[in-house]
Amino acid sequence: MFVKKLLGTVATLGVGGLVGVVVERKRRNEVNAAGVDRPNQIMRYGFPTNSNLKVRSNYVLSYDRRNRNPNWVFEHLNIDIIKKTKDSIERDQLAFTEDSSIPGWFRSTNRDFAKSGFDRGHMAAAANHNAQATWKADTFYLSNIVPQHPHMNQHAWNNLEKYVRSLCHHNDNVYVCTGPLYLPRKEADGRMFVTYQVIGDNHVAVPTHLFKVILTEKKGRYTLRSYMMPNHYIDPSIPLEQFKCSLENIERAAGFFVFPQLKAEIH
Amino acid sequence: MFVKKLLGTVATLGVGGLVGVVVERKRRNEVNAAGVDRPNQIMRYGFPTNSNLKVRSNYVLSYDRRNRNPNWVFEHLNIDIIKKTKDSIERDQLAFTEDSSIPGWFRSTNRDFAKSGFDRGHMAAAANHNAQATWKADTFYLSNIVPQHPHMNQHAWNNLEKYVRSLCHHNDNVYVCTGPLYLPRKEADGRMFVTYQVIGDNHVAVPTHLFKVILTEKKGRYTLRSYMMPNHYIDPSIPLEQFKCSLENIERAAGFFVFPQLKAEIH
Repeated sequence: MFVKKLLGTVATLGVGGLVGVVVERKRRNEVNAAGVDRPNQIMRYGFPTNSNLKVRSNYVLSYDRRNRNPNWVFEHLNIDIIKKTKDSIERDQLAFTEDSSIPGWFRSTNRDFAKSGFDRGHMAAAANHNAQATWKADTFYLSNIVPQHPHMNQHAWNNLEKYVRSLCHHNDNVYVCTGPLYLPRKEADGRMFVTYQVIGDNHVAVPTHLFKVILTEKKGRYTLRSYMMPNHYIDPSIPLEQFKCSLENIERAAGFFVFPQLKAEIH
Repeated sequence: MFVKKLLGTVATLGVGGLVGVVVERKRRNEVNAAGVDRPNQIMRYGFPTNSNLKVRSNYVLSYDRRNRNPNWVFEHLNIDIIKKTKDSIERDQLAFTEDSSIPGWFRSTNRDFAKSGFDRGHMAAAANHNAQATWKADTFYLSNIVPQHPHMNQHAWNNLEKYVRSLCHHNDNVYVCTGPLYLPRKEADGRMFVTYQVIGDNHVAVPTHLFKVILTEKKGRYTLRSYMMPNHYIDPSIPLEQFKCSLENIERAAGFFVFPQLKAEIH
């Protein structure tokens, strides 16, 4: 292993000081790439909530046991994480699997989705985790999935996911928080109601909307972008820009702050 | 204070052994009554969830920031807790107050309830906390409140609360978990939908149902009773027994186990 080799060399030569610092930096990067410190790198700007956390090889989520969906899914991306390598795997070699770390009563299953008319929509997108087979395979846990309108999933939402990956080409780091929303609607009498379908024996909630909050970092400069999309057919002529919204709108509806440590850290 | 006096006596007399044990037992009871160990006594059989916990003088709750309601509220009751004392206070001397420990975006306010047509329904009932003024006052935090149908609140639900207090007269301990539910309903086309109103600027969710799970203990023998009631007008001729339901129904709908440590502890 590269880290060990380098450290070994330093130890043998007995070199300290500047070289030691360089080695230390390299070692940290290696550890990150190897996944040991990965969860803290992904959650660099804080946890939106601390309930039912699932730490996967390349993303972190909080699970909503009442709706059988994630509350939020967090990814840290860059060009090395999204690009295909010799360790990559094709999507069609992977199958959706139940998350056995969730008690059966609160867990969605493939049967819940069958004949429901909804796609099993990834929150951490499979194609964001190309570099390693395990990373991509982990996105197929059903705890990372919500019932998603097929057209929306395969077109408008897919475009948003592609846009996120395009940001990796000209930024150093891209932090992405993705999740479902259950928004109220005004009825004819002026009263507001939340209405959403539930599917399957486990009553998996069909979100009314999905959101994505994207924080990009380039040489210490940060940019924040927030999107919200309805979970139904979206006319392909509507440009992505139209789904931009304020972070506040998402946070009020979701019931959490997306990057709780952001302000304290970067200002 | 009684504890200090007793301990003082022991110290002065230098008495150990058996008397020391008796004093230690008394001291523990005193501490419980004084509230120092109160949260752990209330949560004796485990926490249903660990998100947004609020520990009050005589109850514990988990707050649902998305719906601006509690997830669950836990009480430990007995005859000494519910009975009026010289420290008691009347209900009409108390006012509902916002819970300032919850960020403004996720907090319900009195304004949200005004002209909504819904009562501010206590989950930990005010009349369960008679013995001390602070105990009863603490039940008036809006984090302990959900929008409740006035007739249901003042009749069927009130009867259930009275029944809980009646259980204190012939049991040693009564553990009560209370909370809101958002249940799906089958539409004409066979699909299932969750629909609930939200009120006020903060979109406080109006639960479709409320539940109460009651664990009584008498000389080491335990009895569990579970109730679920729709949050609308309930015909007064319907007996309380009709609202009994399985604990499983409540737990599946709520998304948590009510007494996670119960089986391990009492079997």
